[in-house]
Amino acid sequence: MYPESLKNLIESFKLLPGVGEKTAERMAFFLLNEDQEKTDFFANSITSAKEKIRKCSVCNGITDKEVCDICSNSLRNKKVLCVVEDPKSIFLFERVGSYNGEYHVIDGLISPLDGIDPDDIGIDKLVKRIQKEKYDEIIIAVKPSIEGETTALYIKKIIEGMNIKVTRIASGIPIGTDIEYIDSMTLERALSDRKEIE
Amino acid sequence: MYPESLKNLIESFKLLPGVGEKTAERMAFFLLNEDQEKTDFFANSITSAKEKIRKCSVCNGITDKEVCDICSNSLRNKKVLCVVEDPKSIFLFERVGSYNGEYHVIDGLISPLDGIDPDDIGIDKLVKRIQKEKYDEIIIAVKPSIEGETTALYIKKIIEGMNIKVTRIASGIPIGTDIEYIDSMTLERALSDRKEIE
Repeated sequence: MYPESLKNLIESFKLLPGVGEKTAERMAFFLLNEDQEKTDFFANSITSAKEKIRKCSVCNGITDKEVCDICSNSLRNKKVLCVVEDPKSIFLFERVGSYNGEYHVIDGLISPLDGIDPDDIGIDKLVKRIQKEKYDEIIIAVKPSIEGETTALYIKKIIEGMNIKVTRIASGIPIGTDIEYIDSMTLERALSDRKEIE
Repeated sequence: MYPESLKNLIESFKLLPGVGEKTAERMAFFLLNEDQEKTDFFANSITSAKEKIRKCSVCNGITDKEVCDICSNSLRNKKVLCVVEDPKSIFLFERVGSYNGEYHVIDGLISPLDGIDPDDIGIDKLVKRIQKEKYDEIIIAVKPSIEGETTALYIKKIIEGMNIKVTRIASGIPIGTDIEYIDSMTLERALSDRKEIE
């Protein structure tokens, strides 16, 4: 029904997460109405991002250099390492602004049910980095889930005896959320991890 | 915070309707993880659609040819013309499948308040086409709104005396919608345009 090139544009938008047929059509028609300058910028951004963006050789984070800006920043606290499960998490924590240590991205979470072993998520590289740098603390900042817990416990176990504090970011009720909307596993955790009011 | 090329990719997605910062980030990170083949397809689709898609010289619809498939289809009913306010509408009516006449796209709707006159939406071209082809009926299929009504009445008036039936697609309650969610202008229209049950 649509001309071939418009069909391809719609199919392209449908590749994106959360974009179905109708949204893709809306985006395609919208883009056709934009200036040449903007559509060129769009097309070039895709090509150029795909070409330039790569993994930081130290932390696996996203960068356009060999070593990312965080890893090469001498002002960061070299004694604390925050382990995250995907590169985007780094930007989320950076946006918060209160953390000044280093990061390490593992490639997802251990999930025996899905056949994902420690080898598959690059635990080796993490352990080598921990052995080399003298960290005081490893903060595990992965999703609170069975896979997240498994991964956290595995890392804790494998660096046992290195005399490094291993911590886990807190789970509980998100700020501003009504307790009635919270599932019972989270409520249980919120109860058991309660803190004394000082 | 983000590498330059990633920032540009996020900005590109933010150009799209309904896409804010967070969604754009999600799309950009998603695309970075896709195969080169897919990102190439995406970038090429944008460039190629922008390059090839143009207005049909007859109906102003979207096409990759000089004259679109509908206008050049001799099996269409050449006696009925459906006037729509944007090229996408053609595809929406085609999807319905029950209409077999021709289309004409005007460039938006008359809106004195926004300074949009009949000249701005290409009424000339429409009138010339109507004068040339011997239509039995002009169906006005634009949005039911003040601008839509104004435009419909204007077209009706300008082709008065040509002995052509001018119709307007029905307004009323969408199929399956609870009446309690319908605004009173629509209810009023649904009442006044009631049809005898036969």
